Order: sequence, then structure tokens, then C-alpha cells
Amino acid sequence: MPVAEISIVPLGTGTTSLSDFVAQAVKVIEKSGLKFELTAMGTNVEGTLEEILSLVKEIHQNALNLGAKRLLTTLKIDDRTDKPLTLKGKVEAVKKKILE
Amino acid sequence: MPVAEISIVPLGTGTTSLSDFVAQAVKVIEKSGLKFELTAMGTNVEGTLEEILSLVKEIHQNALNLGAKRLLTTLKIDDRTDKPLTLKGKVEAVKKKILE
Amino acid sequence: MPVAEISIVPLGTGTTSLSDFVAQAVKVIEKSGLKFELTAMGTNVEGTLEEILSLVKEIHQNALNLGAKRLLTTLKIDDRTDKPLTLKGKVEAVKKKILE
Amino acid sequence: MPVAEISIVPLGTGTTSLSDFVAQAVKVIEKSGLKFELTAMGTNVEGTLEEILSLVKEIHQNALNLGAKRLLTTLKIDDRTDKPLTLKGKVEAVKKKILE
Repeated sequence: MPVAEISIVPLGTGTTSLSDFVAQAVKVIEKSGLKFELTAMGTNVEGTLEEILSLVKEIHQNALNLGAKRLLTTLKIDDRTDKPLTLKGKVEAVKKKILE
Repeated sequence: MPVAEISIVPLGTGTTSLSDFVAQAVKVIEKSGLKFELTAMGTNVEGTLEEILSLVKEIHQNALNLGAKRLLTTLKIDDRTDKPLTLKGKVEAVKKKILE
Repeated sequence: MPVAEISIVPLGTGTTSLSDFVAQAVKVIEKSGLKFELTAMGTNVEGTLEEILSLVKEIHQNALNLGAKRLLTTLKIDDRTDKPLTLKGKVEAVKKKILE
Repeated sequence: MPVAEISIVPLGTGTTSLSDFVAQAVKVIEKSGLKFELTAMGTNVEGTLEEILSLVKEIHQNALNLGAKRLLTTLKIDDRTDKPLTLKGKVEAVKKKILE
């Protein structure tokens, strides 16, 4: 099961703030039931490829519906077939190696 | 209609070369019939949101099928509702401003 | 002061694992003294533009020195002049809006 | 010698257009003397790590000076030690494989 990072940047809103739109995106993610983690530079989610792409579609359309005249949506998917991948597991694998 | 940039990075292939996998991704894009442009850092496409997301799904699954044990797929969508957006139009708008 | 997300992907290592290289990158960040946050999809840092770019240089060169034959390094900088920007502040601004 | 993709997104400009800021960034790149290629989703450049990072710094500061109250600058560096890397060479390697 892949993990992914999603971020949206609305343009032409007349403000430098992004938090209104990001908060609405997070509400869409919460409704999806997928495990997620909000970070300062994007929101990370765990789900199948279909679930992630469907979520991106919903987030993107929701931001346009909320009035973004122009919208940049970025998605980075990390997928592997050789062993399970989780948001928590990725961070822990690095932390363990730092302590070695 | 949005434009987008797609890139894939297969890991664990035992080679530093990416061109085999990228070439197969471009073949998937060619079959889709969407207008596209191959660049040194990604492939840019023009299509509806549904077409772009469906293409990303196909490219991603195709790369896994071709033997990528781990795969990073990146998508950046640029969408606007206030005027038409094309790959060619975006580049020309900048070129015109450079000459001003 | 800007915040940024840094990620590295070594290629041709013959393994699907990234955590060895990421752990070494985090050690470089720790030495820099900059405030940072390790996430599943990248590492977020707080610093001046000079500090961030200098850190990216060091992380990149360190990964090459450690044996990465090919290396993809990604940097996303978020900078604003109208009010202070922190990793913690960005997340809290969104969380506050979600509760509204 | 690495190749890289640079993109900037000014926020709070009150317009959905990015081309004014991108055109100014391209002027900075032109002055640097580095080989570059303008694409619909970013500008690709060829240079040493130092040259690329120095260029990013100049582009970023220039956009702030031009009045961007908030600015997202993205950089993706592709570097390899096993053989030469050029913008043209990367695209041609893929095109050759497509024809195979």
C-alpha cells in the first residue's frame, strides 16, 4: 500500500494565507477515513493507489469550488511491492538508523 | 483544462538509468492520445483532471508491472478556471513578457 | 525566515531502501543546528535562505560521498515577508481553521 | 554536472498570472550564462551544484524584491557521478528507447 504527500496552492485569492484552503482539504481527507499526517509542507496519507488518486481529485475539485481561480496541486506517491509501507514505519526506519 | 507534469523514479533496479522506465511511461502517454511534451525533468501533459489522474494510475501500475520494486511517482497539476491553459500557451506567455 | 522541505533519493544503490541515506542526511541537519522535523515524505527545516541552501549543498554532497552514483535532491522553500513563518506555526494555523 | 528544474510561485499578488514573475526569473537565468530550457511547468538548467544553488538564491530574492509577499520556490536536482548529464542528453536517451 503506497503512502503519499499532497499539497495545494490556490492562486489569485488576494491573500498570502493558504491555511483556509488547506484546512478544507484536510476536512476532505478526514472524511475519506484514510490515515493521514498534517505537516508544515504538505499532508501525508496512507491508502491504495485508487484511494489516493480519488482523494486528490476530490481535494482539487473542492478547492476550485471554494473559489480558487487557479490551483496548483502536487502529489508524490511512494509505493513498494517488496514490503509494507506506512507513514509511521518510514519515519521509524530512519530514526533507528540515526541511532546506530 | 489543466496541464500537469508527471515524473517517475523506479528504485532498486540496480542501475542509475531511468530512461527505460521513462520511455515505457511515454508510450503509455502516447496511447492515451493526450497532448504531451517530454522534458529533461518530467513529462508535461494537457488533459482533463480525470484524464490526468487516470494516466498517472496507468503509468504507475505499468512501471510496477515492468519490475520496479519501489516507485516514486510525482504529479504537479496547474488548473485555472478564469482562462484556458495549454502547455504551449504557458511558455509563450512567459516568452512574450521576457521581450517586453 | 523561510521554512523548507528537503528530500533525497539515491539511485543505483541496488536496494529499495532509502533510510540509510536519509538517516545520514538527518545527521547533517542535526549538526547544522537548524530546527527540523522528520516526516514520512521529507524533512522540514526552518532557517534563513542562505542556511537552507547551504544545508542542501551539504546534504547533497554528503550523499554523493556516501556512494550514491545518482542522486535526486528536492527542495521546496516557503518564504513570506508579511509575517513570521515557522514549522509549528504553519501546522497550528491549519488546525485552528479545521476547528472553526 | 547536475541538471535541475526550478519553479517559483508568488502568492498574494492579487492575480492568477505567474508569467510576469517567471519572465523575471528567466532573465536572471539568462544573465547567469547557464544553459537552460523553459517548459510549461518549470525551467530546466545545467550547471554545477554551486551554480544551481546560487541561481536559486538569486531568483528567489529577485522575486521577493519584485513584490511577492509570499513565495514558493521549488528545486529538483538530478546529479550523477557515473556519466555526464545534460538536458539534451536526458531527453535523447528516452527518445531513443521509445523507438527501440
